[in-house]
Amino acid sequence: MSELPIIMVVEDDHLVQGFVEDALTEGGFEAAIAESGEEATTLLNGNETEYRALVTDINLSGKLDGWDVARHAREIDPNFPVIYMTGAAANQWPISGVPNSILLSKPFAPAQLVTALSQLLNAAPLAE
Amino acid sequence: MSELPIIMVVEDDHLVQGFVEDALTEGGFEAAIAESGEEATTLLNGNETEYRALVTDINLSGKLDGWDVARHAREIDPNFPVIYMTGAAANQWPISGVPNSILLSKPFAPAQLVTALSQLLNAAPLAE
Amino acid sequence: MSELPIIMVVEDDHLVQGFVEDALTEGGFEAAIAESGEEATTLLNGNETEYRALVTDINLSGKLDGWDVARHAREIDPNFPVIYMTGAAANQWPISGVPNSILLSKPFAPAQLVTALSQLLNAAPLAE
Amino acid sequence: MSELPIIMVVEDDHLVQGFVEDALTEGGFEAAIAESGEEATTLLNGNETEYRALVTDINLSGKLDGWDVARHAREIDPNFPVIYMTGAAANQWPISGVPNSILLSKPFAPAQLVTALSQLLNAAPLAE
Amino acid sequence: MSELPIIMVVEDDHLVQGFVEDALTEGGFEAAIAESGEEATTLLNGNETEYRALVTDINLSGKLDGWDVARHAREIDPNFPVIYMTGAAANQWPISGVPNSILLSKPFAPAQLVTALSQLLNAAPLAE
Amino acid sequence: MSELPIIMVVEDDHLVQGFVEDALTEGGFEAAIAESGEEATTLLNGNETEYRALVTDINLSGKLDGWDVARHAREIDPNFPVIYMTGAAANQWPISGVPNSILLSKPFAPAQLVTALSQLLNAAPLAE
Repeated sequence: MSELPIIMVVEDDHLVQGFVEDALTEGGFEAAIAESGEEATTLLNGNETEYRALVTDINLSGKLDGWDVARHAREIDPNFPVIYMTGAAANQWPISGVPNSILLSKPFAPAQLVTALSQLLNAAPLAE
Repeated sequence: MSELPIIMVVEDDHLVQGFVEDALTEGGFEAAIAESGEEATTLLNGNETEYRALVTDINLSGKLDGWDVARHAREIDPNFPVIYMTGAAANQWPISGVPNSILLSKPFAPAQLVTALSQLLNAAPLAE
Repeated sequence: MSELPIIMVVEDDHLVQGFVEDALTEGGFEAAIAESGEEATTLLNGNETEYRALVTDINLSGKLDGWDVARHAREIDPNFPVIYMTGAAANQWPISGVPNSILLSKPFAPAQLVTALSQLLNAAPLAE
Repeated sequence: MSELPIIMVVEDDHLVQGFVEDALTEGGFEAAIAESGEEATTLLNGNETEYRALVTDINLSGKLDGWDVARHAREIDPNFPVIYMTGAAANQWPISGVPNSILLSKPFAPAQLVTALSQLLNAAPLAE
Repeated sequence: MSELPIIMVVEDDHLVQGFVEDALTEGGFEAAIAESGEEATTLLNGNETEYRALVTDINLSGKLDGWDVARHAREIDPNFPVIYMTGAAANQWPISGVPNSILLSKPFAPAQLVTALSQLLNAAPLAE
Repeated sequence: MSELPIIMVVEDDHLVQGFVEDALTEGGFEAAIAESGEEATTLLNGNETEYRALVTDINLSGKLDGWDVARHAREIDPNFPVIYMTGAAANQWPISGVPNSILLSKPFAPAQLVTALSQLLNAAPLAE
């Protein structure tokens, strides 16, 4: 099992990028960082990498926010695991989040991210 | 307990209206019917009735569809129980549904609606 | 299957007694009514009837309240399904309720009671 | 919604057949009765009827028992909802049951069957 | 995210204190240790620190045991995540535990504590 | 708590053995490795070690495969936590897996294994 599950991380704050990347690496995942929603959707549309889940900040620098990126990921794969990370936008989740997603309110511990990701991946239906 | 829990039902097809109303009445709920998304949001905004949950069709005759009505209900109350009923639009749920909602794919039995509603109501956090 | 699952119902209000008894009978259960916590614990201690679950009001006329009755039932059987019915005492549940119990806030529909009971019974570990 | 969800019921005891059929009809389902495991697998293999779930007794008169029928149904559809009804064979479920199935221990109330069925149907992934 | 989620740990055995503190630190949490139930309730009553969850031993040296501390925490915040750690008192949990709590039976692995904590924090309703 | 929970791991590929052993050790568990289903069942039958869970590959070199080992473990203890690891055999899980088990599809991250194990152990009923 030299292959690691690759997780798409959408985050434009470099400090949080590092925090998330460290947490995922520690849990045995590989983080693929996108700095904007536009970059994330381009990568998800491409067929070169098999991403297993999305971890996204809400407020991003481009036109697309984290709610948009998650909906885009679900259009490609209706079972795609989605985790939102946010501080200020947490109360928007019951309105703008997708079904079967998890919201992490900042500040959160690395273990919370890794557990949330593992729960969603372990519960995901099998690809056919 | 002469008072019954009142459920907002959004449906413009009179046959389905009757089916849903019968199922809810049989389970001991009271159905308040709105024929369009616009009527539903007006009723939800008003303070005259305490609605306990939303049961909504997706494709409606006005400008608002069922996805819109659910988001509106969640803006008023982030814990509002939401059930969507649909045939053709089921595959849109992972993208356009709100978190912690239930989708009923037509055809469904009255017991499925009543069980879904009871599960959401029994799990809902207490009002403070 | 002429035998019906027997549910212990603790309630001193005769109107609510009738409401609960009708709901349980409609769902195919048999209600055994106790008018006080003291009567309920005496019946639970006896070995003449096999009760399958407890449905209890909180505020009762004797010294024991519904929280006490539930703890007593769990001392006899740690997996005993417990449902509380209450209006005013709902905010006490996170403090005084037992684990894996369900709280029904009044007013509730008969279907909510029957679904809650069925969920707990269907999830209960097998007797050995 | 004149169409009803059709449930495959495998049961060779005519009294229990009637009990299950009444419970399903009351909940708004249509029961298709098979008197043996062999008849059930033949019907499931055919393409004439779209069955939505399996409700099966364990001890059957032919060579196939309920555990076999459930495995057969899951080979056709890996997400097929499965409910077992049993008295004596309940302790075999953790060994011989399929994942995501529900066991109903006799005696059970009609509402327990209808709730179990509704829970499994409401949680089932969407057909594609 | 230089801020870490602070977890109230109530434990009077220094060896277990160290074990729990190491597990929490490894998961990215900060442990605030109270050596008795009395110290824990004093700290929880104060407004200087925002504790995010309670991890408590059952048998403590003062008058308050772990069951008492958990009820006290829930009086302050009805959604407060609660984890009990115990060896001998595990069979008391169905009677004396609070709803939506987790019991860890000794011996347990650090990962079990961190996963239990993450599950409860990730599922907790949003503060308003 | 010098004692660690011991996990039975059934795996004949030495690379995967090392991967699993490292993941479990990192989470604070102790791995007991069996190289075949036959060795695993012999160890489970013995009374010298108290195993807390089973982590098993599906395709094994002997006559018994992972599905067989899990059923054997459940005959000894109907609540025994079971995790299957597989690549090619994942689509067989809905048919051949035991109830309340978790399937990890290769490739998976160490955190997915440790989270799955912790979830099953934390939810397991108390031994009496």
